[in-house]
Amino acid sequence: MKHFFRAIIAYDGTHYFGWQTTRMGPSIQEALTQAIKNLSQEEIIPEAASRTDRGVHAEGQSIAFSLRKEWEPHRLLRALNAHLPKDIRVKKIDLTTDDFHPTIQAVSKEYHYRISPQEFQAPIDRLYAWHFPYPLNIDYMKEAALQMIGKHDFSAFTTQKGKNPICTLTAIEFSFPDRRIQIALKGDRFLYKMARTLAGTLLYVGCGKLSPDCIPSLFSSLDRKKAGVTAPSHGLFLNQVIY
Amino acid sequence: MKHFFRAIIAYDGTHYFGWQTTRMGPSIQEALTQAIKNLSQEEIIPEAASRTDRGVHAEGQSIAFSLRKEWEPHRLLRALNAHLPKDIRVKKIDLTTDDFHPTIQAVSKEYHYRISPQEFQAPIDRLYAWHFPYPLNIDYMKEAALQMIGKHDFSAFTTQKGKNPICTLTAIEFSFPDRRIQIALKGDRFLYKMARTLAGTLLYVGCGKLSPDCIPSLFSSLDRKKAGVTAPSHGLFLNQVIY
Repeated sequence: MKHFFRAIIAYDGTHYFGWQTTRMGPSIQEALTQAIKNLSQEEIIPEAASRTDRGVHAEGQSIAFSLRKEWEPHRLLRALNAHLPKDIRVKKIDLTTDDFHPTIQAVSKEYHYRISPQEFQAPIDRLYAWHFPYPLNIDYMKEAALQMIGKHDFSAFTTQKGKNPICTLTAIEFSFPDRRIQIALKGDRFLYKMARTLAGTLLYVGCGKLSPDCIPSLFSSLDRKKAGVTAPSHGLFLNQVIY
Repeated sequence: MKHFFRAIIAYDGTHYFGWQTTRMGPSIQEALTQAIKNLSQEEIIPEAASRTDRGVHAEGQSIAFSLRKEWEPHRLLRALNAHLPKDIRVKKIDLTTDDFHPTIQAVSKEYHYRISPQEFQAPIDRLYAWHFPYPLNIDYMKEAALQMIGKHDFSAFTTQKGKNPICTLTAIEFSFPDRRIQIALKGDRFLYKMARTLAGTLLYVGCGKLSPDCIPSLFSSLDRKKAGVTAPSHGLFLNQVIY
């Protein structure tokens, strides 16, 4: 008999080659596999709601895995945190059923993209926000963001081909915590590098490289080359997955 | 002829053995000496307002140094940032005179101590805030803080002996940026480990290990053993130095 668990985890992606196990270097998935092996002598491969890229961080990644051993969830949580490196933390564990799949059942996801707009970036922000020291017109960025909302073909905002490109962006919100600009992106699904390309395009609008009314023509072009830069991974956080 | 400069610098103290050059490992002072040597072929030893300990961070350390070469301050600033590691940034450089000394002329200093009170600390905060996952009574902490304000003998809050122990704390302010508790400490001078011992004592009051009205008796005891723990260095930031 197997016991099914779902968990919410946070990580500092700086030292990892992304969620997915790869031969290139350490991954979040591999660190979890190793921690569970160390504490429970079981070899499992956890599944995640989002295969975050190399260097991307998470505040609320959602994962699932099963174990033969029965564990009280809070005890498993404490044991896992004791076995994981400090840059990965399990925030919550619940029992679930074998039909729960963190990707398929996700209703929506929320990513945060962080920017340091100052001339000199605070050293403690250097791994957690994109340093973009150019004048930004936030009103133009908000105007462009409004046109991104809704159900569209997002082919111009991804390098991924051959997958359904229709996604629904439900909200883009700007906030200014500490000395940062934070762009919260909410949607039903995100294509490969889509969150970072939306962020990069908004920044290009903000600094005048693209016009605030360019978004409809970007959508209809279906051409990745027309949109803005792919913003670097270290500014991106997977904030939460909603079921 | 010499040219005198004063600068404001910020650093992530994680990978340094503090401000002062030591044989133990890299220091902020040494990194600055090296950067100036690389760009200007001059061997100088910068002076700082505060000799921050190993692991302590700075948002606004104040330093001074002199060079034989004449530099336009903003050009020197850009050249220095190009030669310094990314975890040290120069924010401002001005010309000054040979009678400026960053320690002696400092009128007051402001330190921030940061705490993560959650059960699980966000991984990206782990190097920049003390994880203290115990219930805290903030009102008790504010009550104790009020009694720390003023001119006192701070012998009970330092391990340093043989130096004038009379300091004036002008303000202790609590704020709650993001998910942190931040304690801002302002005063004319701070003894060795004093900021961290004040923070540790306030945390001990907050979690019930010390009573909120214990501060006057701590002052009169002159006994370091009676005060709270020395809070760990990675939660401390030198925020600004006022002249």
